[in-house]
Amino acid sequence: MQIVCLDLEGVLVPEIWIEFSQRTQIPELSKTTRDEPNYDKLMRERTEILNRHRLGLSDIQNVIGGMCPIPGAREFLNELRKRMQVVILSDTFYEFASPLMAQLDWPTLFCHHLEVNASGYIADYHLRIPDHKRASVAAFNTLNFNTIAVGDSYNDISMLSEAHTGIFFCPPANVIADFPQFRVKRSYNQLLNAIDEASAKN
Amino acid sequence: MQIVCLDLEGVLVPEIWIEFSQRTQIPELSKTTRDEPNYDKLMRERTEILNRHRLGLSDIQNVIGGMCPIPGAREFLNELRKRMQVVILSDTFYEFASPLMAQLDWPTLFCHHLEVNASGYIADYHLRIPDHKRASVAAFNTLNFNTIAVGDSYNDISMLSEAHTGIFFCPPANVIADFPQFRVKRSYNQLLNAIDEASAKN
Repeated sequence: MQIVCLDLEGVLVPEIWIEFSQRTQIPELSKTTRDEPNYDKLMRERTEILNRHRLGLSDIQNVIGGMCPIPGAREFLNELRKRMQVVILSDTFYEFASPLMAQLDWPTLFCHHLEVNASGYIADYHLRIPDHKRASVAAFNTLNFNTIAVGDSYNDISMLSEAHTGIFFCPPANVIADFPQFRVKRSYNQLLNAIDEASAKN
Repeated sequence: MQIVCLDLEGVLVPEIWIEFSQRTQIPELSKTTRDEPNYDKLMRERTEILNRHRLGLSDIQNVIGGMCPIPGAREFLNELRKRMQVVILSDTFYEFASPLMAQLDWPTLFCHHLEVNASGYIADYHLRIPDHKRASVAAFNTLNFNTIAVGDSYNDISMLSEAHTGIFFCPPANVIADFPQFRVKRSYNQLLNAIDEASAKN
């Protein structure tokens, strides 16, 4: 009995902050943990920038609603959901992801939560638990699933290591160089085959 | 951050074995754990009856594919999935449930697995883990979700007790009498309201 844990950004949808920064033409918002490794500082900066530009949650959701999943992602996901159980494990926030989840036919998503104040602006962010991707895969292992995790970057390494099978999807070259132990797939067809293979082994 | 754990049979779809027994006109197959409390004995009997009637998995799936979710279940589930995360926790088997999951737009389902032999007949059954409904809710609690569980019968009591909120949906009178601590809802509208309420408290 299989469960596939998929990263969201870079695997099924574009990097949300980067695309958001382009669509709103606010270059400061394209900063990621690569530029500012202190996540709390990064999130407080992002919140301050959004509020300064008078972007409330509904404005943000309108922008994100204009984004699309990566071409082929919806078809890949729908095919996969017919074959086995799928949970998306992401470090984004439910409030950001929901316009994209609607376009992906509402798969199950484990991520984090934004607090919005009475005026509709982002007041704070709440991480559900630290390293929730790894913790979720560990929980599925305990429930006696064969776990298959798919990600593209450093924040996926702990879940890829925890899973019975870890697979990279279109990762940057530096990520491959640092973690050569994970197989690399570069198209949804290749990925589906690799998942089927990992599933058949069990 | 909420996760709703829904029982399947009696909550979203009819009791599969009972409806299967009616559709195939094999009354022996309507026996449940109420008639035979030894689950292993019951499953071995069911397998023997199916094989005796030369019903392989594809025949069984054809019959189940003719069944329908309870009227309103699909709409209820789709509305719920827009609002929060949903996982179905059931004591059925993936092989039985999949024709019904297709009609419910492939929600995430945790259940058990049937082994099929080379001729397409059921050879054995595999329970993923004992009391998996309770264990799954406990795992979601560990992952810091607010858990809301919905069921209709005795095999749901452990998950209803483990969850932050447990709700009965259309349970038989004896179940209500034995477990008066859980609130009872009798329509999808009432259930959606009760889930929203449990979600708002957190």
